[in-house]
Amino acid sequence: MENVLIKELYRKIEEYNGKDIRISGWVRTIRASNAFGFIELNDGSFFKNIQIVFEKSLDNFKDICKISISSSLDIEGSVVLTPEAKQPFEIHAKNIIIEGNSSVDYPLQKKRHTLEYLRTIAHLRPRSNTFSAVFRVRSLAAFAIHKFFQDKNFVYVNTPIITGSDCEGAGEMFELTTLDLSNVPRNNDGDVDYSKDFFGKETNLTVSGQLSAESFALAFRNVYTFGPTFRAENSYTGRHAAEFWMIEPEIAFADLEDDMILAEAMVKYVIKYVMENAPEEMEFFNKFVDKTLFDRLQNVVNSDFGKITYTEAIDILEKSNEKFQYEVKWGIDLQTEHERYLTEKVFKKPLFVTDYPKDIKAFYMRINDDNKTVAAADLLVPGVGEIIGGSQREERLDVLEARMLELGLNKEDYWWYLELRKYGETKHAGFGLGFERIIMYVTGMTNIRDVIPFPRTTGSAEF
Amino acid sequence: MENVLIKELYRKIEEYNGKDIRISGWVRTIRASNAFGFIELNDGSFFKNIQIVFEKSLDNFKDICKISISSSLDIEGSVVLTPEAKQPFEIHAKNIIIEGNSSVDYPLQKKRHTLEYLRTIAHLRPRSNTFSAVFRVRSLAAFAIHKFFQDKNFVYVNTPIITGSDCEGAGEMFELTTLDLSNVPRNNDGDVDYSKDFFGKETNLTVSGQLSAESFALAFRNVYTFGPTFRAENSYTGRHAAEFWMIEPEIAFADLEDDMILAEAMVKYVIKYVMENAPEEMEFFNKFVDKTLFDRLQNVVNSDFGKITYTEAIDILEKSNEKFQYEVKWGIDLQTEHERYLTEKVFKKPLFVTDYPKDIKAFYMRINDDNKTVAAADLLVPGVGEIIGGSQREERLDVLEARMLELGLNKEDYWWYLELRKYGETKHAGFGLGFERIIMYVTGMTNIRDVIPFPRTTGSAEF
Repeated sequence: MENVLIKELYRKIEEYNGKDIRISGWVRTIRASNAFGFIELNDGSFFKNIQIVFEKSLDNFKDICKISISSSLDIEGSVVLTPEAKQPFEIHAKNIIIEGNSSVDYPLQKKRHTLEYLRTIAHLRPRSNTFSAVFRVRSLAAFAIHKFFQDKNFVYVNTPIITGSDCEGAGEMFELTTLDLSNVPRNNDGDVDYSKDFFGKETNLTVSGQLSAESFALAFRNVYTFGPTFRAENSYTGRHAAEFWMIEPEIAFADLEDDMILAEAMVKYVIKYVMENAPEEMEFFNKFVDKTLFDRLQNVVNSDFGKITYTEAIDILEKSNEKFQYEVKWGIDLQTEHERYLTEKVFKKPLFVTDYPKDIKAFYMRINDDNKTVAAADLLVPGVGEIIGGSQREERLDVLEARMLELGLNKEDYWWYLELRKYGETKHAGFGLGFERIIMYVTGMTNIRDVIPFPRTTGSAEF
Repeated sequence: MENVLIKELYRKIEEYNGKDIRISGWVRTIRASNAFGFIELNDGSFFKNIQIVFEKSLDNFKDICKISISSSLDIEGSVVLTPEAKQPFEIHAKNIIIEGNSSVDYPLQKKRHTLEYLRTIAHLRPRSNTFSAVFRVRSLAAFAIHKFFQDKNFVYVNTPIITGSDCEGAGEMFELTTLDLSNVPRNNDGDVDYSKDFFGKETNLTVSGQLSAESFALAFRNVYTFGPTFRAENSYTGRHAAEFWMIEPEIAFADLEDDMILAEAMVKYVIKYVMENAPEEMEFFNKFVDKTLFDRLQNVVNSDFGKITYTEAIDILEKSNEKFQYEVKWGIDLQTEHERYLTEKVFKKPLFVTDYPKDIKAFYMRINDDNKTVAAADLLVPGVGEIIGGSQREERLDVLEARMLELGLNKEDYWWYLELRKYGETKHAGFGLGFERIIMYVTGMTNIRDVIPFPRTTGSAEF
């Protein structure tokens, strides 16, 4: 007898109607009388449960009546349409095998739990409605991103996680080592003797795969990374994790304009893919997590994203009557309050802000002709602020070297990065998208801890 | 004018025939006379080059004649079919813009280079034929894996990279820290004071996402991981890297038999996907890297994989007349020479070996009724030996706890893993596939350093 996923059953009910099938899953609710009972069963393949009807005629009727929530069952039964009832169909059980009876102290009983509490049972929370939906959407969004780039012939590149250098010249990093911390070896100068470490030198966890991705873009033209990145920044906000996944496309023979076109297309694609492939989950988020969700996402999908320069943005902010916590003047890094004002109040749709002052941006961004700004573009979206940071990269060897000198970066550390400018350099660009940021955006979840299976944040690496 | 990828052009030549288009790429070869010249251009989207014909009539004809290999060009021209010539079509250039002139000391001149040498220029080697093919195939294989699982409704789960425990109870790990190694803080007992570290405790890089994946399988039924894993084992072989990517599916309501069916289907799917989507690259590997490649892969795709128990395998090996370096007797861990003998000489096709002695396998594998063996299954393939290791997991709480006690594992460290057996446990199974192993297998490349963009191995973390 065919073992069918509950999702399959919902999607192809006509095909299964009247047939005998096997299904397996965990009990969400059970209620029984002396003669018969009902089980809401969920197998994790689908947001919705399936109703099982079972009768006294079953040998183990009494045992079934006593099982607890989250017990696992194997069921054989026939599929029966129920056009009059709340649920479109149900299973009339012919045989129920109790695989695992859940203990009565199961912590996820059918009542409301706070998200904070659910974080303490991260091994069980995917069995709740909310997290079942969150992590299915996360999975679909990941696939959407791969499909978007693969359909466009982009090459997926796994840039290294372990790195010998701080690529962005910014951001606190985790050091990794096989040295014995209780007895760190020293060299003759009394310094840590990294020659004894696994790689024979100091190594860290990557904060960005961009520089490596550039080298691949200058061979494959269009590439993307999608992997974990790390920041050892002390932060207790709901928006920062020490370990998160990032998508970093890099395109050659392309400028900032091409970069923005790509970013806009990708964001729209991911939203549409999730809306189409997880309609039940998205309904749930819109109903119970963020009632403005559908309006917000429709607005993104249907808008032509706006575009202004940083200088124009500062001008708008200065002329506004809004009271900001942080002072506005040319040269500042835009704060979330500024970003949200621009995208929510002024443009009322997603908005690229371009050409930021070079002093607040990274060394690899292409210097504009004004010699004051760089060809950067951040995408701001209503409800969040910045979601994507991108730029055209400095492809001119002399300009790049001068900039690195200015910033005190050591040329030798970047020998191979500089060589990319020597052997057939071309204009190229790319951007970075924090994967969790987009998951938060499409689900309405507001804490990054609730969109990562087992989150790692300052002071916390549980499970 | 449309900017077209070379792959697009090859795949849809009828559509572009006679049209004016733009293409961009890097010069692979150039030869010119006084009146005209030919350029082989490659843009990384495709294994093959495209031939550009340019004539004296171009303003910058003389400059073009002088450009070096790997210079980057933007070209406008018309697509002309050339049925008489070696290449099926060519571009007659109307305008050529030199974006970046490559320096004459470009290290990848048109001659044979050793793979060892190419590793020293990992930032440029993707521009060579071999690595262009390797990394496009790697990208396609990654997508094939995602597509295989997503089409079956598996949920992709990003298990944590940073972990507070050695999940497998085996394997050397990298420690990560934000403590100052030159001044490690101590507590009152004189031990390292990890309460001052970023997470407030000792943390490592994961060696496997399996235990976390199990918790998701017991909520979503079918899940898979696909992410980087780490081993700090000193090894200088061509088969081990300190950082590599792993795929770990985990399926609930499933036993070892289901696990093997899944593994066989996945391996066949990936091979077929790559053969269909990268025929030119695969031709190249078959011709220049491993002349037995197609035979080997066809054999895998067309075989029903064999299946024997470990005990039967030992019996076959003991009765064979083969001289093995390592002694054969019940209880040993099979060595590559044993594995290859079984799969190459005896079965001549891929082969699952099942039910290994419990003493050589991990604590979480399900104990068989003989109480001597566990429900494990390793997949051996001709040419390599073991490529997949899988098992049914011990779902019986009492048996698992007894086994952990036997092995000296601390129950408290695994509290959440044990709870999965308390709240609706079910039989479940899974396997691990080293991504680089399968890339080596489908390309014929024999050193893991040559299938990873920027490999990290003992003593080496360059770029």
